[in-house]
Amino acid sequence: MKPSQPAAQPLRRRGERMRQAVLAAAVDILATEGLAGATVAAVARSAGVHETSVYRRWKTRENLILDALTTELDAALPIPDTGDVREDLERFFGALASLLAGAQGQALLRLSVERDDTLDDRRRAYWTDRLERAAAMVERGVDRGELAPGTDPGLLIESVSGPLFARVLLSGTSWDDTLVPRLIALALDGARPRTGA
Amino acid sequence: MKPSQPAAQPLRRRGERMRQAVLAAAVDILATEGLAGATVAAVARSAGVHETSVYRRWKTRENLILDALTTELDAALPIPDTGDVREDLERFFGALASLLAGAQGQALLRLSVERDDTLDDRRRAYWTDRLERAAAMVERGVDRGELAPGTDPGLLIESVSGPLFARVLLSGTSWDDTLVPRLIALALDGARPRTGA
Repeated sequence: MKPSQPAAQPLRRRGERMRQAVLAAAVDILATEGLAGATVAAVARSAGVHETSVYRRWKTRENLILDALTTELDAALPIPDTGDVREDLERFFGALASLLAGAQGQALLRLSVERDDTLDDRRRAYWTDRLERAAAMVERGVDRGELAPGTDPGLLIESVSGPLFARVLLSGTSWDDTLVPRLIALALDGARPRTGA
Repeated sequence: MKPSQPAAQPLRRRGERMRQAVLAAAVDILATEGLAGATVAAVARSAGVHETSVYRRWKTRENLILDALTTELDAALPIPDTGDVREDLERFFGALASLLAGAQGQALLRLSVERDDTLDDRRRAYWTDRLERAAAMVERGVDRGELAPGTDPGLLIESVSGPLFARVLLSGTSWDDTLVPRLIALALDGARPRTGA
C-alpha cells in the first residue's frame, strides 16, 4: 500500500478542490435560479469541469443538490456550548437568522419547500436533522437547572426557529437584531408576569 | 327604487349562489392541483358556469384565487374573546392547527409559498393580516393583567403560529392535540423554572 501514497495525496487534494468548486457553483445557481436552473450541465459548466466528472462523483442531480445544501448550511450553523443556555441559544439562532436574512439563505430555504417531482423528501429531513441537533443546547440547560425539568427541547427550538422560517417563507417580513433575543426571552421567561423577576 | 326590489332580490341571491359555487370549485382545484391547475377555464367548468361570467365578476384569475383563499380561511378562523387569554389562544390556534392538519389547509398554505410570476405578493399579506388580527387576544390579556405589561402581541402570536407553519411547509411533521397547548404554555409560562408556580 505504501508505494501508492505519494501519488494518492495530490489526487485526493485535486478531487477535494473539484468537489468544492462544483458545490460552490451549485449553491450559487440554486440561490439565483432555483431548482429549475440547477441542472448538472449548468453546474458543471459554471464550475469549469466535465459533466461526466460530476456524474461520476455524485451519481444523480439530487445527490449533488442535497450535498450543496448540506455543506453550505452545516458550516454556517455550529451548536455552541458556552455553559449558559440563553447565550447558546442567542448564538445559534443569531447565526440562523443571519443566514436566513441573506439572499442565499432565503433561496436555500425556499428551495426546500419548492415543489419538484424529481427530488424526494430528503430536503425536509435536512432541516429536521439540524433542529434536532440544536435540542442539545436545551438539554444541557435542563441538566444545569437553568430550565424546568419538564422542558421539551424540540418544542423550545421550534418556538424560536418557526417564526424565522415563517417570516422568510410566508410573510416576507424582515427583522432586526432584536428579534432573536426577544423570541428567546419569550420562550425562556414566558409572557405571564414573573413575581420577583 | 322600490319597484325593482322584487326582481333584484332573486337576482342577487342567484349571484351569491354562483359566487359560492365558483369559490368552492376554486378552493377544490387549488387544493388538489395547486396554482398551475387553477385556471379560470378549469374553475368555471367545474362550477358549471360560463368563463365569461367568472371574468365579469372577478376581472382576473388572481382576484379569483385570492377571494377563494380569503373566504375559506376567514370562516375557519374567528378570533375568540372568552375573557381568558390561555383559553382564547387555545381556541384560535386549535382552529388554525385543525385547518393546517387537513389536506385542504395544507394545500392552501403551500399555495402561499409557491413561486408564481402571474400573482403578486398579496398572498403573503393575507397571512400577515390574519395574524395581526390575532394579536387582539394578547392585547386583551395584557389589559386584564394576565400578561406582563411589556408583552409583544405579535411576537407571542408568531411563536405559536411559526412552528405550525414550519411543520407544514418545511419538516412535514404532523402533530397531535397536545402540540398547540404545549406551545401556548411555553409562550405564557416560559421554560425557566417559576418559583411557587
